[in-house]
Amino acid sequence: MALTNRKFTLAARPVGMPKESDFKLVETPVPAPNAGEMIVKSLYISVDPYMRGRMNDAKSYAAPVEIGGVMVGGVVGEVIESNNAKFKPGDIVQSEFGWQEYALSNGQGVRKVDPSLAPISTAIGILGMPGLTAYFGLLEIGQPKAGETVVISGAAGAVGMAVGQIAKIKGCRVVGIAGTDEKVKYLIDELGFDGAFNYKTTKNYVEELKRLCPKGIDVYFDNVGGAITDAVVPLLNVKGRMSICGQISQYNIEKPEMGPRWLWAMIVKQARVEGFLVFQFFEKFGPAVAEMAGWIKEGKLKYREDIVDGFENLPRAFIGMLQGDNTGKRLVKVADPSK
Amino acid sequence: MALTNRKFTLAARPVGMPKESDFKLVETPVPAPNAGEMIVKSLYISVDPYMRGRMNDAKSYAAPVEIGGVMVGGVVGEVIESNNAKFKPGDIVQSEFGWQEYALSNGQGVRKVDPSLAPISTAIGILGMPGLTAYFGLLEIGQPKAGETVVISGAAGAVGMAVGQIAKIKGCRVVGIAGTDEKVKYLIDELGFDGAFNYKTTKNYVEELKRLCPKGIDVYFDNVGGAITDAVVPLLNVKGRMSICGQISQYNIEKPEMGPRWLWAMIVKQARVEGFLVFQFFEKFGPAVAEMAGWIKEGKLKYREDIVDGFENLPRAFIGMLQGDNTGKRLVKVADPSK
Repeated sequence: MALTNRKFTLAARPVGMPKESDFKLVETPVPAPNAGEMIVKSLYISVDPYMRGRMNDAKSYAAPVEIGGVMVGGVVGEVIESNNAKFKPGDIVQSEFGWQEYALSNGQGVRKVDPSLAPISTAIGILGMPGLTAYFGLLEIGQPKAGETVVISGAAGAVGMAVGQIAKIKGCRVVGIAGTDEKVKYLIDELGFDGAFNYKTTKNYVEELKRLCPKGIDVYFDNVGGAITDAVVPLLNVKGRMSICGQISQYNIEKPEMGPRWLWAMIVKQARVEGFLVFQFFEKFGPAVAEMAGWIKEGKLKYREDIVDGFENLPRAFIGMLQGDNTGKRLVKVADPSK
Repeated sequence: MALTNRKFTLAARPVGMPKESDFKLVETPVPAPNAGEMIVKSLYISVDPYMRGRMNDAKSYAAPVEIGGVMVGGVVGEVIESNNAKFKPGDIVQSEFGWQEYALSNGQGVRKVDPSLAPISTAIGILGMPGLTAYFGLLEIGQPKAGETVVISGAAGAVGMAVGQIAKIKGCRVVGIAGTDEKVKYLIDELGFDGAFNYKTTKNYVEELKRLCPKGIDVYFDNVGGAITDAVVPLLNVKGRMSICGQISQYNIEKPEMGPRWLWAMIVKQARVEGFLVFQFFEKFGPAVAEMAGWIKEGKLKYREDIVDGFENLPRAFIGMLQGDNTGKRLVKVADPSK
């Protein structure tokens, strides 16, 4: 085989919203695997909000992508050649292979995907990082109890949709905030949310939240931050919990945004605000995937994929997702499996 | 007895910092106690930051003081007349009798003070609400471990001084932030803080905190909020905890202050921010007072009282405390006990 690998590298650190020119398409030959190594062909590549943070040269929980380095990202792929005893050609696998068509791997950090459980694309969606983020961020950080009210920002994103449905499974009243009327309709009609509103056409978030949450807010699952989060604070109940998953409204801002200070309200409400990274729950991933797969089979947990076709469209798919043009999990389809 | 009771009522809701004219000195006769009732003569009256919040007409965890109502506050007093079987004249008691020289009480919510444990004034200080606030806010919310770094804002106040010493007892590195050089010196020389700085004369809080906290900050006990808290956030370690006790920098502001948004940092740091009210730990007060009384006897927990003499000076003592003119627990001495 004389395969050519295409990959997107980081060409420039974006200022504000990334542009397509911040990425560079590079071609290199696919190397032959040494002993213990294998070649994985990418089938689906994930684009997620967290990747925006990795494009900055800032100290964070993970190292930034270097200029000239391959963009990070979760991949579902197929083993096409293997000198590793644990993997054989035809195996469907998942790992953080990044934005490239082929990856050389020694098998570390690679998990096999069971295609009988659900479509293989879910391994980077509802049964992968976004689904696990929803599961642990809601259940471990938010700790919702039956009868409580859960509000979710970014509710029509991959994580938000799962959060809302899991909260419904746990017997909560669920209210979502999203950015188009179509998304709002989808949350209510298809996913069973008790209420939702479009933050782009709603003038007074506090009044709308009051209307939709007559008993106040017990758990807030935050993907967005900014003015939406400010509006949740006054309606938080005593002993309320804010599970901080993302702050997508802040990622493309050039200077830190100013907002009203509301820490004093945390005292009055005896409330807890907690940020998390899904990897802190790594040891519990197995049982969580099994439980969510069960909910999917029972029809209690639906997922929606927003699939963009073609490797070359990765930057556009990513930038569009940051601007909110997706409903559900945005991923890029690169190739079909061999069988 | 034809005693006259003097009391301070709320004359006007303050805008910003309270003025003496917001209070009114009123004289009324002391009533005769009915069956089950008693008359308590105030000896010490507490002035605390939380009282500023009660002067506002805002929904909060506690009802606001009404215009014309007696100002709230903890009191150590002596029973001078009693038709209540549980209390006899000469008993030293503590309760929320408010800013007045005599109180009529049915005994509910009144606890006896043991004068052999410590001076009776400590029942509204280190062995009362401020001491318990320090104890539970640090140990239950902050959960410091030996070897961790604890930073305290408002460190020379009644609560902050106790927090720092309890953190030292637990084996932590302790850094305090206070508002005068004399307070800074006191924290280091007398209370054994590992470091402290004067926020009024320090230009760059982040740089000073970096110098004093070479291993970052694990627990932040916040009495102040605002720019001081903003400076702590970037130095917070992974899994850091912010125990939000007070926000004295915000209490006298007419419009909500704007500050840089930093919720995103909570994600990266997997950090927790939690507000609390001491009363949520009510059921554990007894053992906590006993443990702190033990520390006092062992010389591990020092306290400092800032006593203003004379009932008529209550408003001035309170306003001065809000402006930071106290070191340690500010209280007003009203009378001596009869023996």
